Amino acid sequence: MTTGDVAAAPRSYTVVGPGGIGGTYGGRLHAAGFDMRFLGRSDVPTLRDEGLVLESVWGDVRTGPLGAAASEDPVALGPSDVVLVCLKTTENRQLVDLLPPLVRPGTIVVMMQNGLGVEEIAEAVVGGTDDVTVLGGLCFVCSTKVAPGHVRHIDYGRVTIGEWRSGYGASGITDAVRVVSDDLAAAGCPVAPQESLGVARWKKLVWNVPYNGLSVVLRAGTDELMADPDTRALVRDLMMEVWRGAEACGHGFDESFVEQMLTDTEQMTPYAPSMRLDFDAGRPMEVDAIYAAPLAAAAAAGAELPKVEALWRQLRFLDAAHR
Amino acid sequence: MTTGDVAAAPRSYTVVGPGGIGGTYGGRLHAAGFDMRFLGRSDVPTLRDEGLVLESVWGDVRTGPLGAAASEDPVALGPSDVVLVCLKTTENRQLVDLLPPLVRPGTIVVMMQNGLGVEEIAEAVVGGTDDVTVLGGLCFVCSTKVAPGHVRHIDYGRVTIGEWRSGYGASGITDAVRVVSDDLAAAGCPVAPQESLGVARWKKLVWNVPYNGLSVVLRAGTDELMADPDTRALVRDLMMEVWRGAEACGHGFDESFVEQMLTDTEQMTPYAPSMRLDFDAGRPMEVDAIYAAPLAAAAAAGAELPKVEALWRQLRFLDAAHR
Repeated sequence: MTTGDVAAAPRSYTVVGPGGIGGTYGGRLHAAGFDMRFLGRSDVPTLRDEGLVLESVWGDVRTGPLGAAASEDPVALGPSDVVLVCLKTTENRQLVDLLPPLVRPGTIVVMMQNGLGVEEIAEAVVGGTDDVTVLGGLCFVCSTKVAPGHVRHIDYGRVTIGEWRSGYGASGITDAVRVVSDDLAAAGCPVAPQESLGVARWKKLVWNVPYNGLSVVLRAGTDELMADPDTRALVRDLMMEVWRGAEACGHGFDESFVEQMLTDTEQMTPYAPSMRLDFDAGRPMEVDAIYAAPLAAAAAAGAELPKVEALWRQLRFLDAAHR
Repeated sequence: MTTGDVAAAPRSYTVVGPGGIGGTYGGRLHAAGFDMRFLGRSDVPTLRDEGLVLESVWGDVRTGPLGAAASEDPVALGPSDVVLVCLKTTENRQLVDLLPPLVRPGTIVVMMQNGLGVEEIAEAVVGGTDDVTVLGGLCFVCSTKVAPGHVRHIDYGRVTIGEWRSGYGASGITDAVRVVSDDLAAAGCPVAPQESLGVARWKKLVWNVPYNGLSVVLRAGTDELMADPDTRALVRDLMMEVWRGAEACGHGFDESFVEQMLTDTEQMTPYAPSMRLDFDAGRPMEVDAIYAAPLAAAAAAGAELPKVEALWRQLRFLDAAHR
């Protein structure tokens, strides 16, 4: 962070969940001079005593020992200007305990998560606090934690950010969106401020719904799903259902986006979606945020998404069988 | 076969494909005194030199050496009164070579297979021959080949039989249906002659479509699919789509049949459907007969079956990936 004003303290950020996403953006913000805190569990001893190591296509970052800025205890960390929630959505039940000590009036909470409806969870926990603003952040990034306190960012990295409104009503580009977007841009991260978080989230679902679920159910990578004419057709059908769901919910966008996603994915490096990595590692899958919430929203708007629903049922079965 | 007329030769039957189904019904008919021939490949040496062994809940059968009545060569066997086609539908392309030498005017060909449209294949091959009648036979039986010439029949066994008409138009109970039904009944097999083969085939699809496909895609048995509330709901949705497909094609039946199938399956001994056995053994799956043909028939009648279609796409992918 460069500023000519020596009196201005750098903005404070707390990263909740220093995994692949939290480590990537937290590491970049640290390198840019922001006042960074990390709320974690298994990573905390390493972060405290040795620091965060981020290997990144944007350049590597080594924070050095973080000391008291890494903790398992949100009360010890206290409130900051911005809280980046980088947990898996399957961990969101923890937010009722983790989030309140991290906010004060004026804090911006950014839900850096997949799926739909995750901002409502933050709103329910800290929305009663005056002047807490809830944003959604969608990360188009390939990064994974390879060891405690050690994150590898191998490709992409753009973040789209929008402010949450009840029912995902369009907010326009708000002050809070501008603040966080500018900070991430200052840290060298590509950002795309969004006028409508609802549209942004449904657009991301166009990718997440087919590739995450089918990669698990069929044990296949994005390249295999695109090379086979049957799964390519099924991917497209699932995307079109998501597109219709978005339309029904009032978050519509141009249909050409679907063809663009198909083409982009064909040109991507073969990639195992996050749900596949979770499944293979025996972790819970983000089935609620990526499937149940959009299906419920679409159903409430009168839209049936039968192929998405069938995939959701299959994933629920596999998720339950896994435990 | 008991008859007071010493001059009457017993009716001749050729079993094409002496596997689980061919061995079960062929073995019973042999024990009842019918003139049995078996067209096979890998089983032929055993059948010729040692005979067929049928271990069955209905009582065991040992035919003794079958000699020239077991062959790989349809010309050597020649025509018979009835031909029971007990191949997997994935082998039906062989019928163009196998079937013509086995029929003469008056022969009854019974397609003892799953799925839809299989009679059209027989009709295309031998329908030009005057007076060849094509029937469909649906076997509700748990039996498998455990070794060459050795079949184990562990449960169920009812056969529903109906005469094929173009477009699966209802035929009523025809003479040919009566002949084959009476012979099987005389051999101790429960039979159910059908007035409409179309209705019978769609009813069997109500079971085959959900359980075969889901047991493969989710690597689960019928018991697991019924115990989990998500897969139970998905099974029901798939059944209802098949039911709607049958309605659209003019082969409708009462909706209560769906609930009955669910209840019956819950009360069944846990069972791996035939497609699962094929998949696990690396054999081609009967995807065309059980999925593609009903989907095409329903689509031609204006009915979309989206969840069935999604499952079909998944199975096509797995079937292709398997080869």
